[in-house]
Amino acid sequence: MNVTVNGRTRHFRTVTFDVRDNAVLLIEQRLLPHEFRIFPARDFRQTARAIKDMIVRGAGAIGATAAYGLAQGARAFRGRDLAKFVSRVETVYQTLKAARPTAVDPVNAMNFVREAMRAGQTVEEQQALALAAAEEFANEDVRHCADIGRHGLKLIRNGMSVLTHCNAGWLAFVDVGSATAPLYAAQARGRTFHVYCDETRPRSQGATLTAWELAQQGVSHQIIADSAAGHLMQRGKINLVIVGSDRTLGRTGEVANKIGTYTQAVLARRHGIPFYVAIPLSTIDWNLRSGLDIPIEERHEGEVLGAWGLAASPKSKSRNPKPDNRIYVRVANPASGALNPGFDVTPPDLITGIITPVGLLKPRELWLRRRELGCALSD
Amino acid sequence: MNVTVNGRTRHFRTVTFDVRDNAVLLIEQRLLPHEFRIFPARDFRQTARAIKDMIVRGAGAIGATAAYGLAQGARAFRGRDLAKFVSRVETVYQTLKAARPTAVDPVNAMNFVREAMRAGQTVEEQQALALAAAEEFANEDVRHCADIGRHGLKLIRNGMSVLTHCNAGWLAFVDVGSATAPLYAAQARGRTFHVYCDETRPRSQGATLTAWELAQQGVSHQIIADSAAGHLMQRGKINLVIVGSDRTLGRTGEVANKIGTYTQAVLARRHGIPFYVAIPLSTIDWNLRSGLDIPIEERHEGEVLGAWGLAASPKSKSRNPKPDNRIYVRVANPASGALNPGFDVTPPDLITGIITPVGLLKPRELWLRRRELGCALSD
Repeated sequence: MNVTVNGRTRHFRTVTFDVRDNAVLLIEQRLLPHEFRIFPARDFRQTARAIKDMIVRGAGAIGATAAYGLAQGARAFRGRDLAKFVSRVETVYQTLKAARPTAVDPVNAMNFVREAMRAGQTVEEQQALALAAAEEFANEDVRHCADIGRHGLKLIRNGMSVLTHCNAGWLAFVDVGSATAPLYAAQARGRTFHVYCDETRPRSQGATLTAWELAQQGVSHQIIADSAAGHLMQRGKINLVIVGSDRTLGRTGEVANKIGTYTQAVLARRHGIPFYVAIPLSTIDWNLRSGLDIPIEERHEGEVLGAWGLAASPKSKSRNPKPDNRIYVRVANPASGALNPGFDVTPPDLITGIITPVGLLKPRELWLRRRELGCALSD
Repeated sequence: MNVTVNGRTRHFRTVTFDVRDNAVLLIEQRLLPHEFRIFPARDFRQTARAIKDMIVRGAGAIGATAAYGLAQGARAFRGRDLAKFVSRVETVYQTLKAARPTAVDPVNAMNFVREAMRAGQTVEEQQALALAAAEEFANEDVRHCADIGRHGLKLIRNGMSVLTHCNAGWLAFVDVGSATAPLYAAQARGRTFHVYCDETRPRSQGATLTAWELAQQGVSHQIIADSAAGHLMQRGKINLVIVGSDRTLGRTGEVANKIGTYTQAVLARRHGIPFYVAIPLSTIDWNLRSGLDIPIEERHEGEVLGAWGLAASPKSKSRNPKPDNRIYVRVANPASGALNPGFDVTPPDLITGIITPVGLLKPRELWLRRRELGCALSD
């Protein structure tokens, strides 16, 4: 999407590949929203480290990064010995996989690249096929997000206010994003609307990443405390909720997403407000049979007990802060502990619809249309 | 309640009076939870400033502070000229009233003291009556909170987990608190239970004040992000919700309280969890006929865009931080704004019961029992 740096607006993807320098180019997300910088990962080990160190995050974005990283590692090989090449590619694969061991997207992405490479007879051919497959994977991510935008477009009408939670924006994908895709599509058609961004404690991805994205695209928005959404709904100020998903159960339609998503779904139901979940196909889990089986990560209590930010005055709005000054402050009582579940599960009865690249579906329709959605299971 | 300073545990009230030094002694709440210090307001102007500067906050606490402040100002008068004395008392009254112009408790408290003084024939008599009335006002605040605890006690059973929001604890009153009163009463009976404190963004009164209170009393507790409560309810980990109230409509049973209270009430209803509101009688508004008429304060956006805390490491738990180091950090995207409603309104259909000093009532019973609850209206 568009980013304005020093008054100049350019289009960026979260992840791209520099063919000449054999480098993976990443938006340095740890510096956002305070500074925009491109991080060039110059070999596959740097690419793996960038995933591990959260320079890049988000399901689609780390998938594409791993795909490019595999091509990068393959292309760095010198010589014609296919056996040695295959062994090197295996090392690259394992290194990138180990960078985020619980994520499924990098593995799927690298399997896609490796599958494509098999058609090559020589090292050189396989290197070329690897890059082509990585580009195809990244482009498909963009296409899927654009499809989500196309299908979700009809939900956004002029004058609406839309609530979103956490960041399921273009920074989490290669471009466009999932929950944000319908918003950007509506903006491109000239529709006017307002977005409320839940700040999304404890890590504040809504206040930092989503707000930054929307500001860069010129979308009207305000950040709210997570617990203010209920009040705004009660006063008729929210017309639609769109969130993303970390894992959606294809069998049941249950949606695991950032902690707080479930709360907004309950509130939306109370007020008769449509609640939509935008998902790329890669987040559908076709195996699990119950949301209770989804492991809920308990994160470090320090996230709840404090906050990260830039030293500033609460009354002034500094537009050029120094990101190097970002510090952690302890807010809570020093002798108290915290409980910090990272995700929650929203049941299908609270979900008005799921915005997929193949169309708007009811949660229970995922299983009925599983072939079309890429499910390889036989039952 | 109890506070442990340097390993020694003593009982403190939030507000007391030092007769010999004619000083109002206040717990310096701006330093909590990082430091415990008693602030001595040595004349009525210092007492007014302490209210204005938020050294003391909370309906019951500022009421008692104003009552003591009026007595303090009256007692500082030298001479026997009753006319001059009355004029001086008027100055004291207006000074204390102006310290928090929108609050009703200081005015009610000072009217109570002034009424009692009328029985005195001399300056000296009136001075003595003023102090006695202020002490009576403070003691009645404690008694009302203790009564709330006595009536709410039956709600707390062994092994329960109780959710609370914001701070309606003893720091907001002279002692005991409202929402916390049943907890402290249950603890005194040896019942074991666990409390989840909503951090209560944006000002974090749950993470700072309530967590500090509970830690000092040795009550088992954990701080959670406001948006984690729904998940815990869904997993059966919360059995009861108790909150306080800034204003309760006597005619309708609607409850205005800190932003986020309504959300917890909606969640509690979804999960069939009892939702109680603990209120001292002074917060009942007998005039308004609809919750929509309650003005909802829009606070400064800086509260949502950042946080106050002590510079620290997120992984370490410092028990002796320096409160002077508390700073504001900007968390959010610097170019984004925020919307910051301070309160919300919970309708009576979501409230299981209201814990009053006269017993547990249904929201609609407030009006039926208005005489008993101190309503002076004729219709």
